[in-house]
Amino acid sequence: MKLYSMPSSGNSYKVRLLLALLGRDYERVDVEYETEALDQAHASGALPFGKAPALHLDDRRVLAESNAILCWLGEGTDFVPQDPFQRAQMLSWMFWEQNQHEGVIAVRAALLTYEIRKHLATPQRLAELLERGTALLRVMEDRLKGQNWLVGDAISLADICLYAYTHTAESHGGFDLSQFPALGAWLDRIVALEGYVGLNG
Amino acid sequence: MKLYSMPSSGNSYKVRLLLALLGRDYERVDVEYETEALDQAHASGALPFGKAPALHLDDRRVLAESNAILCWLGEGTDFVPQDPFQRAQMLSWMFWEQNQHEGVIAVRAALLTYEIRKHLATPQRLAELLERGTALLRVMEDRLKGQNWLVGDAISLADICLYAYTHTAESHGGFDLSQFPALGAWLDRIVALEGYVGLNG
Repeated sequence: MKLYSMPSSGNSYKVRLLLALLGRDYERVDVEYETEALDQAHASGALPFGKAPALHLDDRRVLAESNAILCWLGEGTDFVPQDPFQRAQMLSWMFWEQNQHEGVIAVRAALLTYEIRKHLATPQRLAELLERGTALLRVMEDRLKGQNWLVGDAISLADICLYAYTHTAESHGGFDLSQFPALGAWLDRIVALEGYVGLNG
Repeated sequence: MKLYSMPSSGNSYKVRLLLALLGRDYERVDVEYETEALDQAHASGALPFGKAPALHLDDRRVLAESNAILCWLGEGTDFVPQDPFQRAQMLSWMFWEQNQHEGVIAVRAALLTYEIRKHLATPQRLAELLERGTALLRVMEDRLKGQNWLVGDAISLADICLYAYTHTAESHGGFDLSQFPALGAWLDRIVALEGYVGLNG
């Protein structure tokens, strides 16, 4: 299988991280923001919905959306709970990540990172995203105060998907993670996993 | 089971629609935007993640996030494909809905509908959302040109979830749906389903 992956993007990284944790072989096609490789991928129709990541299976079927790809790769592994209600809770965190967390935490990081977006990074916008993002990180902190993983007592796709943009929230997005010790310990637990790779790994 | 539901919200409506199509009994607690009922629901902790809808099971377990609730209710029914890849494709559309579609189509409708948000409805913002939303609706049109349903050859949770904010995109959001005939026929197919209820049903 072949993964069209944007190196700087948390959505692509979460798929690379799961593949590494599962020890799966794959071909990686880097399509970085603002590069010819991305233009070519768009032009060739390799990216359904016009976004990376996209997973191309050997039989030519293509799957889009990072969290759907996680579900496809994770099915039948220890990263998906056996219990139906826990599976639903896992999906609940994953939809929350795409609907709430990513649109604030990742967006603030993108405004501060990508040169082309810097004109949108007004002080007012950055302050608003800081306040909203801090509240979202507190939701995770409150959950992780009482348990090691977001769902049940084992790691799941919910943790993988939320790790992606959370672990760079401070370095890229300017969020102060020192106020969230349980979240910090959770980040450390993920780094310690066998097979772990970092964003640039 | 008890559903905390915001009557005007597509995210709550999609759950009510699936429950109706499945013929499931439930208790409905209306928590409309800007009402005391919503304040009370927040204060009592009835809404994980601070949002409606939330499904409270009889054994006191609570599930948040509209699309995760759809997955929980739909498991084992005809609304979830048996084929694993089609299930992943269904999730792909559902994550796309929460990450792309809702944040544009529903947001434009909300800016035009809710009095409290009207100061945010600048001509520039409305024009930008119209352009982006039209492109998103075209993604659905392109898919539905070739098939009756978004995934495979049968209705799935992908259709239910995307119907919610699409069917009011013109009436509430000011999008011109006449340019998308396949999408229009798809809307009609859903209205014709046995057990269908409308947004105000």
